[in-house]
Amino acid sequence: MKRPTIADIARRAGVTKSTVSFALNDRPGVSAATRDRILDIAREMGWQPSRVARALSGGRAGVLGLVVDRPARTLGIEPFFMQLISGIEGELAARDVALLLQMAEDGQTQVAAYRRWWAERRVDGVFLVDLRVDDERIGLLAELGLPAIVIGGPDGLGGLPGVWNDETEAVRSVVEYLAALGHRRIARVAGPPELRHTTARGAAFEAAAGALGLTTLSASTDYTGEEGARATRRLLAAPEPPTAIVYDNDVMALAGLGVAGEMGVPVPGRLSIVAWDDSVLCRLVHPPLTAVGVDIASYGAEVARRLLDLVAGHPVESGCHAAPVLTPRGSTGPAPSGS
Amino acid sequence: MKRPTIADIARRAGVTKSTVSFALNDRPGVSAATRDRILDIAREMGWQPSRVARALSGGRAGVLGLVVDRPARTLGIEPFFMQLISGIEGELAARDVALLLQMAEDGQTQVAAYRRWWAERRVDGVFLVDLRVDDERIGLLAELGLPAIVIGGPDGLGGLPGVWNDETEAVRSVVEYLAALGHRRIARVAGPPELRHTTARGAAFEAAAGALGLTTLSASTDYTGEEGARATRRLLAAPEPPTAIVYDNDVMALAGLGVAGEMGVPVPGRLSIVAWDDSVLCRLVHPPLTAVGVDIASYGAEVARRLLDLVAGHPVESGCHAAPVLTPRGSTGPAPSGS
Repeated sequence: MKRPTIADIARRAGVTKSTVSFALNDRPGVSAATRDRILDIAREMGWQPSRVARALSGGRAGVLGLVVDRPARTLGIEPFFMQLISGIEGELAARDVALLLQMAEDGQTQVAAYRRWWAERRVDGVFLVDLRVDDERIGLLAELGLPAIVIGGPDGLGGLPGVWNDETEAVRSVVEYLAALGHRRIARVAGPPELRHTTARGAAFEAAAGALGLTTLSASTDYTGEEGARATRRLLAAPEPPTAIVYDNDVMALAGLGVAGEMGVPVPGRLSIVAWDDSVLCRLVHPPLTAVGVDIASYGAEVARRLLDLVAGHPVESGCHAAPVLTPRGSTGPAPSGS
Repeated sequence: MKRPTIADIARRAGVTKSTVSFALNDRPGVSAATRDRILDIAREMGWQPSRVARALSGGRAGVLGLVVDRPARTLGIEPFFMQLISGIEGELAARDVALLLQMAEDGQTQVAAYRRWWAERRVDGVFLVDLRVDDERIGLLAELGLPAIVIGGPDGLGGLPGVWNDETEAVRSVVEYLAALGHRRIARVAGPPELRHTTARGAAFEAAAGALGLTTLSASTDYTGEEGARATRRLLAAPEPPTAIVYDNDVMALAGLGVAGEMGVPVPGRLSIVAWDDSVLCRLVHPPLTAVGVDIASYGAEVARRLLDLVAGHPVESGCHAAPVLTPRGSTGPAPSGS
């Protein structure tokens, strides 16, 4: 279980280690013939300069880090993260940069991981995801001086660069679409209230509904299908149930469709369903789910490009990636008459 | 954007760099008072020994690698991988080992990544997933001498240790359950034929159905919901459609349920559906899907423990992790009369 070292090459070539080192580093003091012979042997033995040696001599680690702080059980079923990661990976692979991944269920562990990675020179920069309303990570990263990019914004960036999607317009387009279909009583099954984009979406939802004189209901969840299902049962069991529900992720919308089936509520006959984060899941079920979303892989790619620029020492500005788009499918229709 | 170096500490302490180095490495030649003062300053400045320096001096990288070679679009929606990764992560995080992740859509790129990671000392060992029928990676890893564990087996390991789930018994229990419900014509919507566990499941399925005198149909897919939906449409449109379909993953089973809804085929009234890889998705839809599976996170944890043992130089044997269990839910029922 050994990788070839300079000593192995020297032994095979019958020369000293420093001769090998001079040859490999293309420094004078070795004849052209000897250098060629040493390079041939090195290639034959599969020798490559050690990345740690290069990192020590002042280079970079060639690694970017991402700590994901959602519970593992959510990650396993939500397409969002794997699509984000595959978008990031696509950009990194082309430049021979790897992604160091860790999961941590609480903010403390996450903060500790960033601090350690940076102190130990394991990473050149990090992604920060799931921006919170009161986010301790922002101050910490600024203090560490660790190149970092926030997957989120524009509020709460505290001086760090961020990339976000402008959801205000998309929220309004969803509410106006439901109002045009005759819905007067609409609900929102929201993600965790401590996430900034949950509160931003909530404010936009209330504003748009208020402008149109609609009645709103809402429920907070942890993004899991289980909580999405429970919230849906509660909403549909109310004396005056909503005729349309907008979900903060695809998995909860799927669970909502399942609950409608279980309770004998026809979709879209008596209930219209809209999913956020459009994904393949939305197109696989029957009826397929009307959804709002952006291309998440391309969002990941853009964020990766900006972090690579930052690590390379180029100035990086914050910016909006895209405005999510509403794709109507079979799960939305006219409000039931008499509602 | 700087981490404290030995030079920074020396400047702050007003001593030479070698004095700092001696103090931090607890070597003689520095008075106890000076050493204590230097250690205090180093702690205060957040100094930690560089991991690359430690790795160079003969230690380990503290990183395990995983190259995933499924197309990104599949990864994004299949719970299997994120659950596997979260199981692995749980085990690694406790020992301060990180996971280096890369996605590669073809075997060549994957093989190149393993070779480079090992040559550059980026990883101490790797996981190998999605064992193929004719898998070039096995020979390559054996030749590199890179500690590796296969997530799969028992066939085709070529001397590498592997951990697998014994599916033969589970396949038989599914077929016998469907036969007991009166099904005589059953189909299997399978994963890619080049994967070893696809062919192993297929052989077990045919053997069990043959022993009971059942007629079988089958379709090959790439694991995506789209192909699962297409295969289901083809099977249900046949002159003699099956009355039960077993899917090789949860996403395709979900798609199959969607197609049944779209074609007006009641589940389980005219069609029973069984999903492999039980997941939260199976419980969210209506009717909830009967499924077969193991605890994938604990499978990931066991594989991680064995690779850590291997990296530590302990002997590691191949072994079976678990036998998958059938969980009947609402998507299976008696075969329609007259079928």
